Amino acid sequence: MYTKRHYSLLMTFKWSKKPFYYGLIYSGLITLIFELTKWEFTLPWEPISVIGIAVAFYLGFKNNSSYDRTWEARKIWGAIVNDSRKFATAVLTMLQTDDGTDLWEIKKKLIYRHLAWIIALRYALRIPKSWEHKYGPPNLVFVPHYADILNNGLDKELSEYLSKEELDSYRNKSNLPSQLLKKQSEEIEALFKKSLISDYKHVWLHQIIGLLYDNQGMSERIKNFPLPRQYASVALWMNYVFCALIPLGLLDIFTQSNELWIWMTIPFSGLIIWIFFLMEKIGDYSENPFEGNYNDVPISSITRAIEIDLRQMINDEQIPKPYPVENGFLM
Amino acid sequence: MYTKRHYSLLMTFKWSKKPFYYGLIYSGLITLIFELTKWEFTLPWEPISVIGIAVAFYLGFKNNSSYDRTWEARKIWGAIVNDSRKFATAVLTMLQTDDGTDLWEIKKKLIYRHLAWIIALRYALRIPKSWEHKYGPPNLVFVPHYADILNNGLDKELSEYLSKEELDSYRNKSNLPSQLLKKQSEEIEALFKKSLISDYKHVWLHQIIGLLYDNQGMSERIKNFPLPRQYASVALWMNYVFCALIPLGLLDIFTQSNELWIWMTIPFSGLIIWIFFLMEKIGDYSENPFEGNYNDVPISSITRAIEIDLRQMINDEQIPKPYPVENGFLM
Amino acid sequence: MYTKRHYSLLMTFKWSKKPFYYGLIYSGLITLIFELTKWEFTLPWEPISVIGIAVAFYLGFKNNSSYDRTWEARKIWGAIVNDSRKFATAVLTMLQTDDGTDLWEIKKKLIYRHLAWIIALRYALRIPKSWEHKYGPPNLVFVPHYADILNNGLDKELSEYLSKEELDSYRNKSNLPSQLLKKQSEEIEALFKKSLISDYKHVWLHQIIGLLYDNQGMSERIKNFPLPRQYASVALWMNYVFCALIPLGLLDIFTQSNELWIWMTIPFSGLIIWIFFLMEKIGDYSENPFEGNYNDVPISSITRAIEIDLRQMINDEQIPKPYPVENGFLM
Amino acid sequence: MYTKRHYSLLMTFKWSKKPFYYGLIYSGLITLIFELTKWEFTLPWEPISVIGIAVAFYLGFKNNSSYDRTWEARKIWGAIVNDSRKFATAVLTMLQTDDGTDLWEIKKKLIYRHLAWIIALRYALRIPKSWEHKYGPPNLVFVPHYADILNNGLDKELSEYLSKEELDSYRNKSNLPSQLLKKQSEEIEALFKKSLISDYKHVWLHQIIGLLYDNQGMSERIKNFPLPRQYASVALWMNYVFCALIPLGLLDIFTQSNELWIWMTIPFSGLIIWIFFLMEKIGDYSENPFEGNYNDVPISSITRAIEIDLRQMINDEQIPKPYPVENGFLM
Amino acid sequence: MYTKRHYSLLMTFKWSKKPFYYGLIYSGLITLIFELTKWEFTLPWEPISVIGIAVAFYLGFKNNSSYDRTWEARKIWGAIVNDSRKFATAVLTMLQTDDGTDLWEIKKKLIYRHLAWIIALRYALRIPKSWEHKYGPPNLVFVPHYADILNNGLDKELSEYLSKEELDSYRNKSNLPSQLLKKQSEEIEALFKKSLISDYKHVWLHQIIGLLYDNQGMSERIKNFPLPRQYASVALWMNYVFCALIPLGLLDIFTQSNELWIWMTIPFSGLIIWIFFLMEKIGDYSENPFEGNYNDVPISSITRAIEIDLRQMINDEQIPKPYPVENGFLM
Repeated sequence: MYTKRHYSLLMTFKWSKKPFYYGLIYSGLITLIFELTKWEFTLPWEPISVIGIAVAFYLGFKNNSSYDRTWEARKIWGAIVNDSRKFATAVLTMLQTDDGTDLWEIKKKLIYRHLAWIIALRYALRIPKSWEHKYGPPNLVFVPHYADILNNGLDKELSEYLSKEELDSYRNKSNLPSQLLKKQSEEIEALFKKSLISDYKHVWLHQIIGLLYDNQGMSERIKNFPLPRQYASVALWMNYVFCALIPLGLLDIFTQSNELWIWMTIPFSGLIIWIFFLMEKIGDYSENPFEGNYNDVPISSITRAIEIDLRQMINDEQIPKPYPVENGFLM
Repeated sequence: MYTKRHYSLLMTFKWSKKPFYYGLIYSGLITLIFELTKWEFTLPWEPISVIGIAVAFYLGFKNNSSYDRTWEARKIWGAIVNDSRKFATAVLTMLQTDDGTDLWEIKKKLIYRHLAWIIALRYALRIPKSWEHKYGPPNLVFVPHYADILNNGLDKELSEYLSKEELDSYRNKSNLPSQLLKKQSEEIEALFKKSLISDYKHVWLHQIIGLLYDNQGMSERIKNFPLPRQYASVALWMNYVFCALIPLGLLDIFTQSNELWIWMTIPFSGLIIWIFFLMEKIGDYSENPFEGNYNDVPISSITRAIEIDLRQMINDEQIPKPYPVENGFLM
Repeated sequence: MYTKRHYSLLMTFKWSKKPFYYGLIYSGLITLIFELTKWEFTLPWEPISVIGIAVAFYLGFKNNSSYDRTWEARKIWGAIVNDSRKFATAVLTMLQTDDGTDLWEIKKKLIYRHLAWIIALRYALRIPKSWEHKYGPPNLVFVPHYADILNNGLDKELSEYLSKEELDSYRNKSNLPSQLLKKQSEEIEALFKKSLISDYKHVWLHQIIGLLYDNQGMSERIKNFPLPRQYASVALWMNYVFCALIPLGLLDIFTQSNELWIWMTIPFSGLIIWIFFLMEKIGDYSENPFEGNYNDVPISSITRAIEIDLRQMINDEQIPKPYPVENGFLM
Repeated sequence: MYTKRHYSLLMTFKWSKKPFYYGLIYSGLITLIFELTKWEFTLPWEPISVIGIAVAFYLGFKNNSSYDRTWEARKIWGAIVNDSRKFATAVLTMLQTDDGTDLWEIKKKLIYRHLAWIIALRYALRIPKSWEHKYGPPNLVFVPHYADILNNGLDKELSEYLSKEELDSYRNKSNLPSQLLKKQSEEIEALFKKSLISDYKHVWLHQIIGLLYDNQGMSERIKNFPLPRQYASVALWMNYVFCALIPLGLLDIFTQSNELWIWMTIPFSGLIIWIFFLMEKIGDYSENPFEGNYNDVPISSITRAIEIDLRQMINDEQIPKPYPVENGFLM
Repeated sequence: MYTKRHYSLLMTFKWSKKPFYYGLIYSGLITLIFELTKWEFTLPWEPISVIGIAVAFYLGFKNNSSYDRTWEARKIWGAIVNDSRKFATAVLTMLQTDDGTDLWEIKKKLIYRHLAWIIALRYALRIPKSWEHKYGPPNLVFVPHYADILNNGLDKELSEYLSKEELDSYRNKSNLPSQLLKKQSEEIEALFKKSLISDYKHVWLHQIIGLLYDNQGMSERIKNFPLPRQYASVALWMNYVFCALIPLGLLDIFTQSNELWIWMTIPFSGLIIWIFFLMEKIGDYSENPFEGNYNDVPISSITRAIEIDLRQMINDEQIPKPYPVENGFLM
């Protein structure tokens, strides 16, 4: 996530310049052939503009869907924040003991395992998928701190909240976050068996864990189900066809007019091609909100904020610092 | 579901080439007749472009609705994942016995029947409907493994999780998944009668089964209620009318201009007709997310993932493998 | 609901041919007057095309809203399916008796009254409203079986599930389905008083009845509140104004061009007028999903499916058959 | 709410004729000046049409948002219907007494106060706001019955359901409906203290009252928060600018063509201006669904329907009649 | 939030005049160079209009998303109103004591802390973010009363509802509202331990606090996650490119026509540029509903309304006055 008011025009252009240059070369070639051969291969602009409007619709639809995916992803992680607070508060205020035994260690362990669940989920969500833009630590030059943490691996982060034995017990499981929540349910069952929690409150805690299952599953759904590739592909190929027609249509206009200079076809084609590919690219780079890229939903930072909030609730020491904004990016 | 970044241009074209070829033939005929007879049957392009924009709106609406159906279907199956985990966790941690009897078999049976429910539902959702594109195993050349499983039939898959007697008892029922959930309710009632579960937890389990009924019913709703055929039909016929007008309009433009070569009408018509039918076809092939086709929501693969997750929860042996991606497709 | 892949082009045209013929007559008159008088009353096309695009937006908005109404109606009836299964399962597995009394009759009566509620609701939803297209049995020529049932009246259908005495007791009530649900609540209260159900399960059953009240009220909302007539009316009149301008604009184009034949104004006007009125009509005939028309949400068929499902749950005899598809239509 | 199929064209035009007449005068002046002075102040049409399409988008967005506000308002009042039935059924079937005391008076009083709450809420929602179209009884000529009731004032209606003492006790409170729900909660607390209701059912009744708080608050939200005025204003001023440009652009077209009669600029400008202001006005008059105007959500009629339904549930006498449709309008 | 019917045209223009003036200067320069040099650098208008339509789509999308953010923010604060009433009513009617001890002080303290939570949340939401328009008290010239209160700071407002000791105990916590809700949970736990509240009601109160956590978290989500900057930036830069092309395209039209006066390029360019930047700016100034600006969701006023409502419920004295509308603005 970018946190400044705007990407600068230069930054935007640098990021998307390829179609501009290819557009210049392509329309340059077309214009040159036209000038040299005087073949009548130009096309009228009016039908091309209908295609252009249809393509703009389609790109608009794609951008809209990408935005919805990003926004839904953010909503889910907002819900993780809320449900984490609910879970922590419930653990802190609903256990009871008649003889005044100190339950502090039990409470802390439950909250620590909850933080481990968030970290494990965040980690699972950023494992690359075949339809995503792949970015590894070496590419992430603008966010060196984030790349460092990525290099350290999951186990190092988890070891702060889970014992080595427990961590080892999950080694062969395919879905670590799911098994962690199952473990939480078993721990709560143990509390119930020791009569530290009433029948009704047992169910209420189970319901909160149900909310966490929902949040996890919804995140996995966005991760595992891309914007259907048939839509993404057609948007791309329609855009290519439209852009291929642009210089043919512009040439026709320029040759019909006495006032206009035919070589203007080249920069003008480049510009239009750039704008349409820019629209395409923005959607393309926003459709996978967990791909570990600069436009991601900042789940590392959200995770950290939950860690701070919950550890302050239990008056923990050595609270970690908020995640830093690096070069305007928050991961 | 396709899992690569993009369908290649060739693949896209191969899949949708028919309208292109018919467009070439049709506009070829029109141009020929025009050249031979010099009849004044061409039409001005401006009004055609208004129709084109209206058609683009309509196709956009259709694509949008198809996308929403697919996405809703995926959401429902995401909820099935979440509610399955909730159900399994509840079964595993909420039964109680004072005298330490081993309830393991009871728990395992409930979870196995739950997996049978998912498989039966998946199977029911892929029975062909009169408005769907029908694809049988012989057509599914790109996903041979999936076609194999389809050929084996439902009973073989169910027999892994249900006893033969139980399976036979459902023979005359019209809605197998619905009867399986009713059976689960009866089993839970039996646990309650044996005092293995409290009054309140009995209701909570019943509420989870209510969620499963919701998921099943919502899947059936998308399966049984197509995109209203009046919308789909009008989109198609409007597209035909627009495409029929294209060469008549292009001819008029080409004849009015001195610069343009009239025979360009033919490839240019073909191209525009192809683009508009491509847009139509994308919507058409995405509107039924459970038709057993390549663009389906991958419910076979989701089912398998739930099987793995739940069977790992009960430390089952011989966990099945994840569903394979075949030629880029995941079913 | 139409169940085939597409309405045929002929069927579509037959259903919407009026605007085409009127369009021909109107533009024929305009062209004739123009040719005879040579008055300069034609209009430039460019501004007309801006109106056309605005009208296309407006019709798109109307179609979209109609679709949303239909889809929401289907969702509500999908929820009725789910909540019916929940209700039946709860009734079957939550009553308890210590001394083994047979509660079968009580359970069956509750489920039968539930089916009566669905039938009464379905019937109430199809009573004509002042803003709907009115269709009586004589008009419904394509669905004779449905028309027959409609002729039989509500009482005949209800008598299968309710005793004559009970049916008579509702005679003076204005909202029969609402009173039936109240009766269910009273019966459940009686069970509670007889200690056949616990305090907590009493509330859970009441909550399910609350869901049924929601479903009923949401259906009534769509029935009683049309697409706001100001929107529907403006869409219609804007369309009329646009279509009235079409031949005036086409004449101007045809007269300016040397290549074009002025009498083509007539069929071309007819075609454009037809397309725009077709778009208008599709929205118009989809906005009331319970008007008892061919494009309705098939609530008769859904009702029947619930009857079959629930009666199989109680192992009833003489299960009714599914509702037939007649000439491609399912009611 | 209008209940006939369509507002007639005449009615629509009468309601929106002002922009048409002003458009005629304005474009008449422009044309006259142009003819007299021959100044070259006309403008090319093509850029104006781009503005026109942008304005059409913007008005479409505004209409869409207004529609959503109306539809959400109707949904909320649909929920009030459903939750009222739930509340009444709960009150009627969940109180219990061991010694057979007659609780009829208590139940009736609770239901009567509930009806008072709806009436008070309806009244509060129709108090004029600074951004609404203000309509008092003298303006409401088409709905004289509604105007009469409005003149009678709130107290007269409330006195049917509340004692004078209770009514007086709320005099100084700023939010009457909110205090009425608080009173209901206190009455239910009193029942609990008298052991007429169990602990769990006490909470369930409180939860239903929570739903009523939600409905009230959501209605107040739509009432108190208009469509953001910056959007409404920009739509209006953009429309003015576009309409001001129309005759300047038309003049240019008419003067360039030999075939066209320049004075046609005047009626044609008037027509286009009328259509765009009609679109603007439809949104404007639909954005406040509780302003006491003809296009309101019919909350008076819905209130009355709830009164009838609930009073029939308690077998009340002298049930009031449904609210009348007056000249096609239902308030 | 602006509360009058419309921003006046003058006010709108004043607020957005910069692009108009820059547009005049820019197009003036272009026209001058063209006139002086007669270089053929003009561009055909048709392709520019396709860009213009694409830009209009994009700005429409941005406006739409901004509106959705504002409306969602208002919904969340509407939910805060509702849940505050629920919480207060629950606190007032669900505590119980057998021996008639007066619980008034406990109830009042809980409600006062709740009001402190709302105030602290409101304050936290208005701390400036790096992507927002920053407005401090000196800039807020139209709302002096609001600026005054802002100057007083949070502690002064909180001191009315919290003791100094309690306030101090939160000094080192990073999220004050979150810690306040945790404190409420602890206070309710204390009530439970003193048997002033039943097990089940304890959970119900905890669930209401869960709703408050949700409301807080959803507000924070909108605050902390801007409209993704890549979308906002591309909309801006596309708009710049389009506006840069406008005079080049207009010049071409004006020079081709004999009727038109070339210097009209300047005011006409200015006008179109102004309209497109106005659309851009409206979205830009509506996308952050909590930035402390004139178009904010009026959370100060909503907070005050809750204070009044809840303090009237406990018959408090010295009820504060509603928040004033200043120059048409409500904060």
